[in-house]
Amino acid sequence: MDKLYIIKIGGNIIDDDKKLPSFLQEFAAIEEKKILVHGGGKLATRLAEQMGVEQQVIDGRRITDAETLKIVTMVYAGYINKQIVAGLQGNNCNAIGLTGADGDAILAHKRNHPVIDYGFVGDVDAVNTSLLRLLLDRNIAIVFAPITHNQQGQLLNTNADTIAQELAKAMCAEFDVSLIYSFEKDGVLLDADDDSTVIPEINAAYYQQLKAKQKIFAGMLPKMDNAFAALNSGVNRVIIGKAEHLSQLITGSAGTTIIK
Amino acid sequence: MDKLYIIKIGGNIIDDDKKLPSFLQEFAAIEEKKILVHGGGKLATRLAEQMGVEQQVIDGRRITDAETLKIVTMVYAGYINKQIVAGLQGNNCNAIGLTGADGDAILAHKRNHPVIDYGFVGDVDAVNTSLLRLLLDRNIAIVFAPITHNQQGQLLNTNADTIAQELAKAMCAEFDVSLIYSFEKDGVLLDADDDSTVIPEINAAYYQQLKAKQKIFAGMLPKMDNAFAALNSGVNRVIIGKAEHLSQLITGSAGTTIIK
Repeated sequence: MDKLYIIKIGGNIIDDDKKLPSFLQEFAAIEEKKILVHGGGKLATRLAEQMGVEQQVIDGRRITDAETLKIVTMVYAGYINKQIVAGLQGNNCNAIGLTGADGDAILAHKRNHPVIDYGFVGDVDAVNTSLLRLLLDRNIAIVFAPITHNQQGQLLNTNADTIAQELAKAMCAEFDVSLIYSFEKDGVLLDADDDSTVIPEINAAYYQQLKAKQKIFAGMLPKMDNAFAALNSGVNRVIIGKAEHLSQLITGSAGTTIIK
Repeated sequence: MDKLYIIKIGGNIIDDDKKLPSFLQEFAAIEEKKILVHGGGKLATRLAEQMGVEQQVIDGRRITDAETLKIVTMVYAGYINKQIVAGLQGNNCNAIGLTGADGDAILAHKRNHPVIDYGFVGDVDAVNTSLLRLLLDRNIAIVFAPITHNQQGQLLNTNADTIAQELAKAMCAEFDVSLIYSFEKDGVLLDADDDSTVIPEINAAYYQQLKAKQKIFAGMLPKMDNAFAALNSGVNRVIIGKAEHLSQLITGSAGTTIIK
């Protein structure tokens, strides 16, 4: 099976005029098939402020109302996605930017919650792997903005981590998938305050030990649980670390590689 | 050769909450291969006002400075493009939204003008027909936002009419291309003030006659000259008329069909 890297980058890279070009250069250099999933960064929040659109928060959860959906569609699917695609082209990496609506790539439904109406937030139902395969087979890198659709004309806002995970789960029937989550830390740390204590590799047994000894920082637990869920769905490895170390994350010489 | 319809719609459709859905329904119903090229509409101007970005005009020409490029990328490639794609999906028409940067679909260079610096305005150099063919062969309709790139990481703003024409010229080696320009009039009129005087068909000889008799309204001359330039490059027919009559434009029962 061909290798496929699915890499999620967060706002700290997108918002950084120096880090983004250097990340794109490293991403472009990956010779295997690759998908980049980007989040939003602060630009959407800034644009909402400029436009005088107030962000609705209910019980600590952000609500995507119609105006917010318009803003995130403009910023994520428009500005950020196309900047990244053009940047990759500038690094001789052919790339195509998609939302879930494009080619019906990711079908979702509006979140159905008994108490909170999240607004135009989409939970993923299906990934159209044949279109993605068609593009990847042509050596076109795919750049996903975290926007989906419901097949009835409605765009929806979907968490970028979720998009990356759903893509990884769907693509692992056809590819040897590595799912890379970049975040602000160097990896999973034995001591949350000491960046030099990165654990290079964790498997399920070791994770249980670490949890039993309360060595895993509480904030990491959902990320780890998501990682094992992905592995249990057929993803071969999940790598967590800094986007600035992308090429080392891939070779396993930086970050934490999580395996079954 | 397969038939291919390349249809350009302007702001009057995009800005209209009733006309756009009905246009998308008619577009979705076209059974042949199809590309939709959309312009901007008033949303970009409105957003610029909300953001306090002043539009630069030099000698009556709009200049695309960095902030304006950001706005048009957000509005054209983000909001409008994805609304249209989701709308087509809602009409059971699989569609994918592209800019020229995506898949290196349309390569351009920053306009080089001896006197005016137009800013980030792109003149088209090449169309990547193989990607477009790949998608069309899968019965995926393509929706183009009028944004191109220069292969060096720079997005550029390109006139939507020009994009439609360049696509038509490039695709006509492989398809029987009809290029449809929709505008606010019913077609080319014998009497500019009387919508019932649409000329159903014009060829080069008839055009010369009409011009000699000064029967063609001055504002139509550049559109007509562009149409004949497209025909001379291999496009089979150019159709001019109202987007609201799309299905009749295609059958020739509305609008003006221009042939060689």
